[in-house]
Amino acid sequence: MSERAFIAQSLAPLATTGAARGLADDAAVWMPPLGRELVFTHDMLASGVHFLATDPPADVAWKALAVNLSDLAAMAATPVGVLIGLGLGHDAAWRDGFAAGLAAALAHFGVALWGGDTIAGLAAPVVGVTAVGWVEPGRALGRCGAQPGDALWVSGRIGAGGHGLAVARSGVAASAADRAALRHYRRPSPRLALGQALGGQASAGMDVSDGLLIDAARLAAASGVALHIMLDAVPWFQPSDALAALLAQGTAGDDYELLFTAPPGVDVPALAGPTPVARIGSVAAGAGLSLSHQGQPVPLPATLGWDHG
Amino acid sequence: MSERAFIAQSLAPLATTGAARGLADDAAVWMPPLGRELVFTHDMLASGVHFLATDPPADVAWKALAVNLSDLAAMAATPVGVLIGLGLGHDAAWRDGFAAGLAAALAHFGVALWGGDTIAGLAAPVVGVTAVGWVEPGRALGRCGAQPGDALWVSGRIGAGGHGLAVARSGVAASAADRAALRHYRRPSPRLALGQALGGQASAGMDVSDGLLIDAARLAAASGVALHIMLDAVPWFQPSDALAALLAQGTAGDDYELLFTAPPGVDVPALAGPTPVARIGSVAAGAGLSLSHQGQPVPLPATLGWDHG
Repeated sequence: MSERAFIAQSLAPLATTGAARGLADDAAVWMPPLGRELVFTHDMLASGVHFLATDPPADVAWKALAVNLSDLAAMAATPVGVLIGLGLGHDAAWRDGFAAGLAAALAHFGVALWGGDTIAGLAAPVVGVTAVGWVEPGRALGRCGAQPGDALWVSGRIGAGGHGLAVARSGVAASAADRAALRHYRRPSPRLALGQALGGQASAGMDVSDGLLIDAARLAAASGVALHIMLDAVPWFQPSDALAALLAQGTAGDDYELLFTAPPGVDVPALAGPTPVARIGSVAAGAGLSLSHQGQPVPLPATLGWDHG
Repeated sequence: MSERAFIAQSLAPLATTGAARGLADDAAVWMPPLGRELVFTHDMLASGVHFLATDPPADVAWKALAVNLSDLAAMAATPVGVLIGLGLGHDAAWRDGFAAGLAAALAHFGVALWGGDTIAGLAAPVVGVTAVGWVEPGRALGRCGAQPGDALWVSGRIGAGGHGLAVARSGVAASAADRAALRHYRRPSPRLALGQALGGQASAGMDVSDGLLIDAARLAAASGVALHIMLDAVPWFQPSDALAALLAQGTAGDDYELLFTAPPGVDVPALAGPTPVARIGSVAAGAGLSLSHQGQPVPLPATLGWDHG
């Protein structure tokens, strides 16, 4: 089956909105909602870099969509449509699995496929996703804006993605926790509802994709403040008394939780509703990230996370 | 220099609009113009597939932007912003050339860099560009809409891209025509002004990227009509009495001209203004593409163009 036939038979049926024009034109045409700002993000995933060659292609499609929606969530945006750049390797079955996973993810997240491009002949698959969303004017979150006196919060649990990657590499999921972590690694759940609830309420936010510590350091730098994390307060995927085990989880990637700051007057648990959130630290005047454990200062590890770019 | 440093030093200075947030956040935020439809396109270019490993990286950046703007032109849209997915191979100098060419192209076309992603470690470079533009409601062009009785038009000259590819492959530009064709291949000029003028006036349109004949056949199929091209009337890059030489140019790609249909009452040359346009054929009831040369029917060549997907 040629790429053109693949697009017509496997992708065009997923492009059900009028904006996509059945993937038959050179571009999509969409009337934006009145009085909304639009939010755009683009992330690429490459085989051997961001996913394993052994990861099921349906999961790669899901993850490619999910990590972009996580970026929209971090900006407090509601996703609307995506464009997919699909660079295929030489495995013809891979693209069919990808299309099946894309169909499932689009339906799950309620996002329209607007268009994209499919190319073949690469050494290994590469997927680029552009996600478009909207936000009420002035309510977009960003990494700037944390103020001294704010509290630092994180959603969900930290370390699930890193544990899932280890399970995927080992090829053995021996326990329910292993399977949950593997699922989290391959099919992350962007915190869309929480992000939307935080718009205009949180002072700064981002998603935790490269590791809690490195992303916290980036938020501190962007906001021009000092962040402090109490390691005891972090909701770890694998709680432990061993500091090294906590730091390993705090420097692993693929969590796709939201890290955010809020002024003391904001009732974050009420805003978060069913999404688990935990207050893990504080914002102060100054610069950089600091850690404590059981009330004692902890030196920063040499590597704070995945600094891939 | 890490990818993060590359983004900060080479790409962030190109992202000068507020929407891009200095490439420091997870996404771009942009207030769309009131009462406009938005147009989205995404095309990928891969080394060894869409460009040559020997093509200068600055030209690859220009071309990646230009081919996406050509898709916007084909829809009658005015470009506004782009997101770039840059997948790098192992040549560290390549990315610096790419950034320089991107800077030049963004300035030339007056388009904002809104965001994107940079990844490293691929076997060879892959570039994905998402381009966003606007059009007045209802004025977007598409491949559907050609009506029996319409005339078929094309802009510029046909065959320059194919000749330029041959020059690039040979490594020898022996004449002024060779150099012009090479420049056309590496730095195509999307027909933005013409596309915008045709919005709401032409009945159908697309850009000629894979070859005049294959793209004409696609337009005929999308509109559900028959198209006839008089090969004598086509503005060839290299005019010739030899039919084979004309068909070779009509089946080569990389022209990035506009192919469009218009009702008899539309004064296309007046709309086109300074952009050269030629009436090359007609639309009739029926299906498929037919050719004639010096008044005689010409059978379709076995390959109509580049059917890469």
